[in-house]
Amino acid sequence: MTGSPSSAGVSTALLTDRYELTMLAAAFADGTAQRECVFEVFARRLPDGRRYGVVAGTGRLIESITRFRFGEQELDLLSDVVDRATLDRLADYRFSGDIDGYPEGELYFPGSPILTVCGTFADTVILETLVLSILNHDSAVASAAARMVTAAAGRPIIEMGSRRTHEAAAVAAARAAYLAGFASTSNLEAQRRHGIPTAGTAAHAWVLLHDDELSAFRSQVAALGTKTTLLVDTYDIRRGIELAVEAAGTELGAVRIDSGDLGVLARQAREQLDKLGATNTRIVVSGDLDEYAIAALRAEPVDSYGVGTSVVTGSGAPTAGMVYKLVEVDGRPVAKRSASKESRGGRKGVLRRYKPTGTATEEVVFPARNPIPVGEHDRLMQVPLIRGGEPVPDLPTLEESREHLKRALVTVPWEGLKLSRGEPAIPTVFEGF
Amino acid sequence: MTGSPSSAGVSTALLTDRYELTMLAAAFADGTAQRECVFEVFARRLPDGRRYGVVAGTGRLIESITRFRFGEQELDLLSDVVDRATLDRLADYRFSGDIDGYPEGELYFPGSPILTVCGTFADTVILETLVLSILNHDSAVASAAARMVTAAAGRPIIEMGSRRTHEAAAVAAARAAYLAGFASTSNLEAQRRHGIPTAGTAAHAWVLLHDDELSAFRSQVAALGTKTTLLVDTYDIRRGIELAVEAAGTELGAVRIDSGDLGVLARQAREQLDKLGATNTRIVVSGDLDEYAIAALRAEPVDSYGVGTSVVTGSGAPTAGMVYKLVEVDGRPVAKRSASKESRGGRKGVLRRYKPTGTATEEVVFPARNPIPVGEHDRLMQVPLIRGGEPVPDLPTLEESREHLKRALVTVPWEGLKLSRGEPAIPTVFEGF
Repeated sequence: MTGSPSSAGVSTALLTDRYELTMLAAAFADGTAQRECVFEVFARRLPDGRRYGVVAGTGRLIESITRFRFGEQELDLLSDVVDRATLDRLADYRFSGDIDGYPEGELYFPGSPILTVCGTFADTVILETLVLSILNHDSAVASAAARMVTAAAGRPIIEMGSRRTHEAAAVAAARAAYLAGFASTSNLEAQRRHGIPTAGTAAHAWVLLHDDELSAFRSQVAALGTKTTLLVDTYDIRRGIELAVEAAGTELGAVRIDSGDLGVLARQAREQLDKLGATNTRIVVSGDLDEYAIAALRAEPVDSYGVGTSVVTGSGAPTAGMVYKLVEVDGRPVAKRSASKESRGGRKGVLRRYKPTGTATEEVVFPARNPIPVGEHDRLMQVPLIRGGEPVPDLPTLEESREHLKRALVTVPWEGLKLSRGEPAIPTVFEGF
Repeated sequence: MTGSPSSAGVSTALLTDRYELTMLAAAFADGTAQRECVFEVFARRLPDGRRYGVVAGTGRLIESITRFRFGEQELDLLSDVVDRATLDRLADYRFSGDIDGYPEGELYFPGSPILTVCGTFADTVILETLVLSILNHDSAVASAAARMVTAAAGRPIIEMGSRRTHEAAAVAAARAAYLAGFASTSNLEAQRRHGIPTAGTAAHAWVLLHDDELSAFRSQVAALGTKTTLLVDTYDIRRGIELAVEAAGTELGAVRIDSGDLGVLARQAREQLDKLGATNTRIVVSGDLDEYAIAALRAEPVDSYGVGTSVVTGSGAPTAGMVYKLVEVDGRPVAKRSASKESRGGRKGVLRRYKPTGTATEEVVFPARNPIPVGEHDRLMQVPLIRGGEPVPDLPTLEESREHLKRALVTVPWEGLKLSRGEPAIPTVFEGF
């Protein structure tokens, strides 16, 4: 029996930059390892022209932190990197601090303190790489995916980009796209690991494998039922649709078109299907779709979209640009001061202001030590995620985070949901710094 | 003892699109599963303006195919996807066909048949997703990284982009960057899994953790020795360099500058270090570097580069756009014919032509059944990788593939190594189709 790709018990500790460990060794040596630190995760800006970002990966992160342990294999490798005393401490390492953050599926804006990690320097510094890898990847995908879902205006989208990204990133991308409102994924491991519904049609190879298109379609219908989706653009689309209905009858589930001018082809296909009596047969389109192409097809008789490359690569922004910055040491605010990358020291609080109608108006970031009044329509953004190293009870499920995002998007001012480039949908205001 | 992130024995079979499995089930049902198929991997085009691509991931792919097995957990999941008879066959599945391809580290051009997978339809179709995920990701990173190495003109580059990409993709990205000539990586798991040298400096958090910059530097030197790299741009760079030399003496290994106008700052730093007598102290620069920024620093006294985001995201091209196409069934050439995405049917052979001086002149793709004469300066590009499901003996190591690329880059016509946008460095010619 082979093992499974399940991640249960597998250490995440080496998914880490070497310098976190060498800093740790030096901090053990000089005693600063025990100083109480606050690190914050935020994005200095949104990708060019984007109006909002979507926090994603939080659930994966919390689970990954519980597996951040140094076993024998990890310590073996590190014996060349740090001294014996540090190795001994690492053997006992488990994160024992607190983490607060935006709920997964929440919107964020430039400067939003998305995650706040508190604990000793030893506890907190070595989580940097893992925290950023997960949040930067998953948020980049979810942020792009949410725009596609808006553009699709209620029509389902299948995520089918696994082949365009690293094989493990594909699983996380499927999860992030589902969080953002995609209906399903092609990725089987995403179903196994995250319970995401899988879907699929057939490839051109399926048609080419057979002696002719009709036998390919007949065979697919025989094996998978008339509700299957037949890929009709291998040779001639008009002929393909004719044969598809011949093979499956007028109760055929769907046809897929994967190339050409999808708008024109969808219109022709709808007309032809209706004439053939296949009025309930749906039309799935795919092929280099991004949020703009999806929006451009809004007036066409398209029933669902298959999206690959653009969603798994964040549609031009493959990483969310979040950083992990030390802002407080033993209660003292700290911040880098030179050059262009300035940061504000001190732990932050954050609330979002809303109109009585529920529309968000601004993100207010303030020093946590000087809390500001929370008005009737304001909402504090951070929630507890980890306490004393343990995930808090009743963390939201992926489905709940998906609902959270759906509700959050309703609060965005209407111009913030446009695909056109512009400023963040709401401004981030820093009060009291 | 916790488990390790080692991939040994972990199944890769579910890192697969659902439709590969449903097509397989239908092919078992109609008997076509046993037809002999040839699938080819190629890229229709290079990323916009690029002159060449670098094949990367082959080694990871071969290893992953040996783990493509359906164990109990995989079959459990699939019980909702395919019928009982298919599950039974999957339980015994192991790839038993042949794979030929470009050696890892070889250059490729539009249409180059990078990988050729032969076997029954059952054997070959379900590898599509895994093959493309690995090659598309790793080749995208290596192709960008090779341009950075050329731009660096012999100065070492550290890959430090783990935090900007999925945590597992980061490990593969470190490998691809090393293949392309990067000197080292920050990623510890890449060292453990692939033997890549790791390197690192310190973060701004290290300085901020301490009461002042001098104690941070003194402590780092005490723990890590004078050959360490001190990060000098937390407060004021000039003062930082002064304190760095005060803490470590003139034998300080290096200073790192991570922000600001790196060219100007490097010149000032060199002058200051020399005046302080630290003439051997190197200057490391980092901060949003890509191949263009690296090239722009060529005239400056920079000793090494740290590159993050741009290399792990393929510098604007995060996926290589390779496809996996069925080209032959039971000896009969097949190809999609409709619309824009036409393909040439039939298994291909490929050779590269060179001038007597060793400069490559063209990539010649021909029908494998009509071999063309191989001239004195021509080279057949594909090598055997898997035979009867088993990796061939003596596959190149990562180090050997790294050398292979180094030699291959020497054969590129000089204008093909320029960073400016242009046509592929050599044309791909299709002969005999």
